[in-house]
Amino acid sequence: MKLITFDAGTETGLVGSLDGETVVELDVPTTREYFERGGAEPTGRTFASTDVRLRAPIVPKKFFHTSGNFREHEDESKQVGWSHPIHKGIVFFQNVDAIVGPDEAVVYPEHLTSELDYELELAVVIGKPGKFFTAEEAVDHIAGYVVFNDITARDIQRKEMASGVFSFCKAIDTFCPLGPYIVTADEIPDPHNLKMELRVNGDVRQSSNTSRMIVSIPELVAYHSPQGYSAGDLITTGTVSGVAGFRPDAEDYYLRPGDVVEAEIEGVGTLRSPIVSWKDAYGQPAPPRVTW
Amino acid sequence: MKLITFDAGTETGLVGSLDGETVVELDVPTTREYFERGGAEPTGRTFASTDVRLRAPIVPKKFFHTSGNFREHEDESKQVGWSHPIHKGIVFFQNVDAIVGPDEAVVYPEHLTSELDYELELAVVIGKPGKFFTAEEAVDHIAGYVVFNDITARDIQRKEMASGVFSFCKAIDTFCPLGPYIVTADEIPDPHNLKMELRVNGDVRQSSNTSRMIVSIPELVAYHSPQGYSAGDLITTGTVSGVAGFRPDAEDYYLRPGDVVEAEIEGVGTLRSPIVSWKDAYGQPAPPRVTW
Repeated sequence: MKLITFDAGTETGLVGSLDGETVVELDVPTTREYFERGGAEPTGRTFASTDVRLRAPIVPKKFFHTSGNFREHEDESKQVGWSHPIHKGIVFFQNVDAIVGPDEAVVYPEHLTSELDYELELAVVIGKPGKFFTAEEAVDHIAGYVVFNDITARDIQRKEMASGVFSFCKAIDTFCPLGPYIVTADEIPDPHNLKMELRVNGDVRQSSNTSRMIVSIPELVAYHSPQGYSAGDLITTGTVSGVAGFRPDAEDYYLRPGDVVEAEIEGVGTLRSPIVSWKDAYGQPAPPRVTW
Repeated sequence: MKLITFDAGTETGLVGSLDGETVVELDVPTTREYFERGGAEPTGRTFASTDVRLRAPIVPKKFFHTSGNFREHEDESKQVGWSHPIHKGIVFFQNVDAIVGPDEAVVYPEHLTSELDYELELAVVIGKPGKFFTAEEAVDHIAGYVVFNDITARDIQRKEMASGVFSFCKAIDTFCPLGPYIVTADEIPDPHNLKMELRVNGDVRQSSNTSRMIVSIPELVAYHSPQGYSAGDLITTGTVSGVAGFRPDAEDYYLRPGDVVEAEIEGVGTLRSPIVSWKDAYGQPAPPRVTW
């Protein structure tokens, strides 16, 4: 099933399943609650897919961000003498208030960064809550998959990492595009063999396959389980090579207002994100940077 | 006001204000919703404070953890040749599912760490949501204060920081004691002049004052506002000197099962946390560590 959050007419934040050209509304207030309850029944209402607007498919309680699961991403980091190795096992929390949906603007905060980057990632949706479990048990906790574009201010990240930690660079408002829908696990027989491709204005920037992960998805989910999962939590699985900031000619590849990013994973969908200048988004110049 | 979450008899998760020996129940389902609504009315029920059990005063949508705001903490890090400087501006997200309340067990995960540490911090409660605002505007967003004990597996932190980021070390289940209550801002006329003291089994380990912050609380709240705040969010203000892991004789100071930690901030309260072995908490030995 393709589980969605959508607006229809003046109604916002409805939950449904996308079945070809038809949206079947489900009787549950949020997709997070869909997982908490373990499912939902149709309300009886349906909509043409062309009559609805898709929103971010879920706002989880926790959004685990992992890194280091594709060797190729660490390898490319050496091209620019990145300050730290990118070990598997990296984890931190993403900003759940920075989530935006498909076709929703990523607003360029020109007062904070001039190195806006993209990172294509497969995110796993946790269905069943739990903690301290094994990889064998993890399979029962995995309910679905969704495409995530990890928008990153690379200049801010470099500064943060001088202190051995980063978060702000990936947590700025609108920096977490997610979608277009959650594909339930039954529709993805082998999540370890999916083509991944990210395009900027149609140019392919990242091209890989989930088969290149070092650690399997159940192993990854189990490894992080001492932190506990709630139903509907997300955990990402790391990006692949091709990010702008790790190219020797990075300046030519950073995102600019007007760009359109398409993040695609085979069977999981294509997430489209326009990059919008502050002025176009808010009708006024970006505010002064808060400094101290 | 001292805003609390409490259990009474078989009723759990009630919200109230603690007025001396009396708890006045408030007509709101959670303290987070108290801030979303901008307040709540009494239900008419009251309880003797001795008849209720205090729980974690809030589970926020986002729990910003900042660091580097007390020079003395960076200075002490040099005693052990810590791998990175501790710059002001450090921020990351805490695990909202790891929050426990006053007198609630911090469960020692013996299979994951042997260097369990404490860190006393003042956490600020955000009342009014907002983003991209100035220090002058920040004052309107600050609704209260609460004591936070940042439990940290120092050995895990060192390993994580080899990759230039950490989170797991502070995010393990039960590692976020918070409480005993939220003291609203009107009761703290000067949050920049509060004594801070943390004791382990009665021995003073950390002793400082919020006056030693480099950056004021409104400046800190404003600086991180590009990440956006929801009503009820928490943001911590950094720990002070005296943590176990930064002493040359750290081994003698790490927490052990059976220890009792008291984290106290003048006017904001004393948060008491017993450290409990896995076996005492769950009646069985800790599970094998998940490795790969």
